[in-house]
Amino acid sequence: MNDNKLVKITFQPDGVEVFVPAGTLLSKAAAAAGVFIESPCGGVATCGKCRVVVSGGCDEPAATERKRLGDDEIAAGVRLACQARVLAESKVMVPDSSRSRVQKILSSATLRDCVVMSGITKTLCEMSAPNLNDETAEFERIESIFARQNRQIKPNINVIRKLSKILRDNDYNVTVVTHDDVLIAVEKGDTTSDCYGIAYDLGSTTIVGYLMDLYTGTELAVSSVMNPQMVYGDDLVSRISFATTQQGGAEALKAVVVDALNRVAREAAEAAGVSTDSIYKATIVGNTCMTHLLLGIDVTSLGQSPYVPSVCADITLPANELGLSNCAESPVVVLPNVAGFVGSDLVGVLLASEWKDNGRTRLAVDIGTNGEMALWYDGNTYSCSAAAGPAFEGAGISCGMRGGPGAIDSVQIGESVEITTIQSQAPIGLCGSGLVDAIAQMLDAGIIDETGRMLSVSQAGELPAALRDRLVETEAGMEFILAVKEESGNGRDISLTAMDIRRVQLAKGSIHAAIQTLIRAAGASDDELDEILLAGAFGNYIRVESAIRIGLIPSISHEQVKSVGNAAGAGARLALLSEDEMAQARELAKSAAHLELAVSPDYQMELMERMLFPLK
Amino acid sequence: MNDNKLVKITFQPDGVEVFVPAGTLLSKAAAAAGVFIESPCGGVATCGKCRVVVSGGCDEPAATERKRLGDDEIAAGVRLACQARVLAESKVMVPDSSRSRVQKILSSATLRDCVVMSGITKTLCEMSAPNLNDETAEFERIESIFARQNRQIKPNINVIRKLSKILRDNDYNVTVVTHDDVLIAVEKGDTTSDCYGIAYDLGSTTIVGYLMDLYTGTELAVSSVMNPQMVYGDDLVSRISFATTQQGGAEALKAVVVDALNRVAREAAEAAGVSTDSIYKATIVGNTCMTHLLLGIDVTSLGQSPYVPSVCADITLPANELGLSNCAESPVVVLPNVAGFVGSDLVGVLLASEWKDNGRTRLAVDIGTNGEMALWYDGNTYSCSAAAGPAFEGAGISCGMRGGPGAIDSVQIGESVEITTIQSQAPIGLCGSGLVDAIAQMLDAGIIDETGRMLSVSQAGELPAALRDRLVETEAGMEFILAVKEESGNGRDISLTAMDIRRVQLAKGSIHAAIQTLIRAAGASDDELDEILLAGAFGNYIRVESAIRIGLIPSISHEQVKSVGNAAGAGARLALLSEDEMAQARELAKSAAHLELAVSPDYQMELMERMLFPLK
Repeated sequence: MNDNKLVKITFQPDGVEVFVPAGTLLSKAAAAAGVFIESPCGGVATCGKCRVVVSGGCDEPAATERKRLGDDEIAAGVRLACQARVLAESKVMVPDSSRSRVQKILSSATLRDCVVMSGITKTLCEMSAPNLNDETAEFERIESIFARQNRQIKPNINVIRKLSKILRDNDYNVTVVTHDDVLIAVEKGDTTSDCYGIAYDLGSTTIVGYLMDLYTGTELAVSSVMNPQMVYGDDLVSRISFATTQQGGAEALKAVVVDALNRVAREAAEAAGVSTDSIYKATIVGNTCMTHLLLGIDVTSLGQSPYVPSVCADITLPANELGLSNCAESPVVVLPNVAGFVGSDLVGVLLASEWKDNGRTRLAVDIGTNGEMALWYDGNTYSCSAAAGPAFEGAGISCGMRGGPGAIDSVQIGESVEITTIQSQAPIGLCGSGLVDAIAQMLDAGIIDETGRMLSVSQAGELPAALRDRLVETEAGMEFILAVKEESGNGRDISLTAMDIRRVQLAKGSIHAAIQTLIRAAGASDDELDEILLAGAFGNYIRVESAIRIGLIPSISHEQVKSVGNAAGAGARLALLSEDEMAQARELAKSAAHLELAVSPDYQMELMERMLFPLK
Repeated sequence: MNDNKLVKITFQPDGVEVFVPAGTLLSKAAAAAGVFIESPCGGVATCGKCRVVVSGGCDEPAATERKRLGDDEIAAGVRLACQARVLAESKVMVPDSSRSRVQKILSSATLRDCVVMSGITKTLCEMSAPNLNDETAEFERIESIFARQNRQIKPNINVIRKLSKILRDNDYNVTVVTHDDVLIAVEKGDTTSDCYGIAYDLGSTTIVGYLMDLYTGTELAVSSVMNPQMVYGDDLVSRISFATTQQGGAEALKAVVVDALNRVAREAAEAAGVSTDSIYKATIVGNTCMTHLLLGIDVTSLGQSPYVPSVCADITLPANELGLSNCAESPVVVLPNVAGFVGSDLVGVLLASEWKDNGRTRLAVDIGTNGEMALWYDGNTYSCSAAAGPAFEGAGISCGMRGGPGAIDSVQIGESVEITTIQSQAPIGLCGSGLVDAIAQMLDAGIIDETGRMLSVSQAGELPAALRDRLVETEAGMEFILAVKEESGNGRDISLTAMDIRRVQLAKGSIHAAIQTLIRAAGASDDELDEILLAGAFGNYIRVESAIRIGLIPSISHEQVKSVGNAAGAGARLALLSEDEMAQARELAKSAAHLELAVSPDYQMELMERMLFPLK
């Protein structure tokens, strides 16, 4: 991943090109290019669903891949995208049968009401052409129409440069677009009916864009892609490292995200039947590192303790300066951050939840690789970020996978094990919500105890027979089989290992410890917590009882825990639609205290304790 | 001049390169490159003072030049810069003996007092580095210092991008520069003592820059160059034509002016011993066409009736966006225009003269190729522009020249003719003030009558003998010799022809007619005029009595006529130093009514009348 050499891959028949570091798996390169390939087996060369045809440039297939494909296919250039690594310029044909059809990207969250006042106006200006008796300058002709409506308009030199031509070419019948009284576009004829904006949730894994009508506040389309930066590193630390140690690294990370944002806008605009030229405003929320990279801000300081960002304030710049293909001079607003690891995405969550408005003591948690969270208590906001690791995103767990078809998403253990999977397909792995469910049920069934230790075969005498059979001892330790290979979609047992349990303990322990530390720092007590908001995909699909059972969140009544969906994206939409909401976002970011867990003695103590599972 | 091909000339030993249209005279190309070559004879191959040595790329010398140089010099590559035309890439050596030492560029005007409040602040920020107990973001560290001083600061993404590095490299001891509360620079250590600005008068002939201390309002240095656009056309009409008909023409015109502005800043900064990086603000006045070209605004509409500009409002953009080598993010403010041919230079004149403050009825006239003028009457400003032609700049007059060594600048006719010249050198031509003087004296002496007709030899009997001898009849008509060739610096008679008189009548008539039309349009009467302000070089050097005698301006008491020097430049300096003054400039431009002479029946009538000379 740290090789300087970037190589070009062209995916066919799409014709999409992408530059990736030599050595990148084809499956990752495809994701970076927005070409999504099936991977039910989780990339272990067993399902064979990711067949592609390669013209040169890749490594030689290893024994496992050769075995799966056979000599004829190998001779024809067929490869498994999950195995083949690209070494030099290459063309890759992706057949329809290998394409992934379903993206389970969380895009919807109920948007609360707001007064739509985006700061964008469109004004039809029907003027007479200048003549010797009326030599008013071109811009001032427009200004005089605004003055008649008791409105101001300020010039923007980039629009002024071509103003004369567009007025003359259109007989002085144009639509004038302004943002906060500044001219941002002049368009041919009457285009007043089209006024759109796009709100982005720029996640490290997925990028979601919401195309909104800036008049009505209606959502017109949602589009999403995987974050193509994943090809440069799954987590933020490796992306920061790539940005700061590789020549041109930061530029490459920025460029692929700009491309992805443009792709999202294009797809959403196509779905809604509008033009991206009619997108006059964009808002972006994301973690601090993502937005720093996008804005071209040096991220060196984000990669070293004390992890200080260059700026927390919101930044607005014109779309064309950022490389976005929206209306050239339209504003792109990146929402404010709280700290290096508490980004504008959490600010979006707070904004969407009317954070300060209901007087209750509330906790909002957005669980990703980092657990970003905030507590509202007694008129103050306290925030922190816990390095939970990617267990709840399915990474680092032996049968873990992201939420997608065939992922076990709920588990019930009684006399035997009952599972459900996404889209009811044969199980191929365990996503975050299934993982939490499985552990909660194993705790209840006594398969693991509060220390996380799994029963050995000899200790399992009291379990129902159907469960006992699922406990197996391997060289690496104990395993509990959730789905046997005869029933699975990839011919392998889907199980949880003792090591998986430990990883979950660490992840849930760090999040719960952070919650407790926030509560203590605020001077609150556990029983004062009125409400917990769970944001993000994991928070949306998780079963609350199970989350409490494993001790991921404090034990409060289930009714007090709310899944708020992609609240970060909802916050971005509110800030897009309303300047008042944007002002609130600014105020929320500014007023939030940030707690550094690394120097909190409380946190270390809590972590020791919260790694255990709660007693029933 | 309309040839698409641009060729490169390198002037040695300066090493300065310039691109000019094939066919350009070397003397013009040199001016464009800022290499000033002597031309006492006015470019007619007689004085031989403009010798240069050419390596290839020029046309063949014609007979007159061969005669002046001789075969040895021709063989050695010697050419006269006033004759040689460049055809292809060429190197030109300019010996010291051919270099022009004196530039008579009007740069000084008394600057009235103003409250210095430029909007630029410099703040020494000595901060502690972030640590785990203080993770405030870099920008917000600066913000907190400002907050302690009850001040705001807003981020600028272009500075933020490198903020972290500059803070870390300098142990968090930096000087922060803001403009109107927006961050524009962060500098190493304590640079608070250096805070400069530059005010430009961007004329079509000359560019003057005033380097000012933004703390004290003191003028530190003045520098000037010829406007290098002259190589693309002497007058505005030919430059507009070049910009709109030649591929890349507008870009070339912009680029040479940006270079010239940078050269002026560099020279002024060197003279004052400061760095151009410490120039944090610039203001620019100029005619509408000049500033449109500089800003990259399409000038097509300025080249066609009704001569409408794209914008009159003032425009501010960052130095680096314009290509200026001042502090990268520092503001460059182009002052507002009134109309297509009433530019921000006239607004500068009005600002410098405290236009509305003294209750008198005042007329301000800036005479160049166009006579731009404004009248203040009964609480309103009326403005117009008269196409006077370049006679008063010495162009189109047989012995005319710009103000420079050897130019006749005053004439006294009694029993004989007495002249003075600039720097008391042998006369080689007649500059504007000398021209007006000569005609006034010839009127008084009866050598011409009020219709502009010159005495014939037969009618000259009553003249003193010494004058009579100076009246000569040529094929082209009558001539009056001001300096005989035996005394002149170029071996030729310096004289005024009947045709010259007609040209002056047309020029002065159009200006005076414009004045009268303004007075009428305002509803004023001639005797209500309390004051006339004459701005610019011509206005500064002209003898008021003579200007009144020939009917260039209305006949009022000499004490009521004031030469205000380069008042346009003074206005630029005031707007640089004070945001209040800038607001006044905006108000002056906005409130000035503009009168289009082309559709004024009054003007046509006045013009008929004012072409005559007044009776004594």
